[in-house]
Amino acid sequence: MDEALAEARAAAARGEIPVGAVVLGPGGGILARAGNRTEADSDASAHAELLALRAAAQRQRSPRLIGCDLVVTLEPCPMCAQAISLFRIRRLVFGAYDPKGGGVEHGPRIYDASSCHHRPEVIGGVRETDSAALLRAFFRDRRP
Amino acid sequence: MDEALAEARAAAARGEIPVGAVVLGPGGGILARAGNRTEADSDASAHAELLALRAAAQRQRSPRLIGCDLVVTLEPCPMCAQAISLFRIRRLVFGAYDPKGGGVEHGPRIYDASSCHHRPEVIGGVRETDSAALLRAFFRDRRP
Repeated sequence: MDEALAEARAAAARGEIPVGAVVLGPGGGILARAGNRTEADSDASAHAELLALRAAAQRQRSPRLIGCDLVVTLEPCPMCAQAISLFRIRRLVFGAYDPKGGGVEHGPRIYDASSCHHRPEVIGGVRETDSAALLRAFFRDRRP
Repeated sequence: MDEALAEARAAAARGEIPVGAVVLGPGGGILARAGNRTEADSDASAHAELLALRAAAQRQRSPRLIGCDLVVTLEPCPMCAQAISLFRIRRLVFGAYDPKGGGVEHGPRIYDASSCHHRPEVIGGVRETDSAALLRAFFRDRRP
């Protein structure tokens, strides 16, 4: 989570919403890391999770990340939650809960749908105070 | 939808699940087109819709595709349905319904969540017979 928080801080420094993610391989080593890049890339789907998943899959040369884990500073949105399932991530660890935009414990609760083919193990609220503080500081500095 | 079906056929010819998508600009012209590339790109998120959305946003140099429409041969999965919302697509037109993997009229029904910030107009079942026939032929040829 330290590495994911570092990615979130780097995103904030670029003017992006501070969310960071890391993909860990089956042995625990870091396969890929990313921060939010929606503005820099002109890409509304360039969330930290999706970027890290794609980079890890490129590195593994496989569209499925069997036995890999994803660590992210914020509860994934429905898009990223479904992508985590499509990439066959084993365990999802996230920081702050996101009642407004989350898709795991809130909103459409992607893994609760009976049509969901692969459900990762989910551990939420890990260092949520640090993750939430980054987000609060970012939005506070942006609002008049 | 003719253009989206052509992308779906091209995907099948590459050994990919035959789904194709086109993004139309506010004036009705084609901004981007794509077929499924999950195997070719080693990317479980390389669905036709997400690829076409990203390409259109790159072309517009904006993470939001205001006034643009997406035409796709199959009901989008939950990941793509949420991406369509994040990119602020005005109207979603899709072909075949997907009771197993769809996320618009099936599964988590992304646009029905109260937390969904942007709901496109949705028109489903457009030339669904042609779209479904492509998918059926593809899976029939692959199964022993």
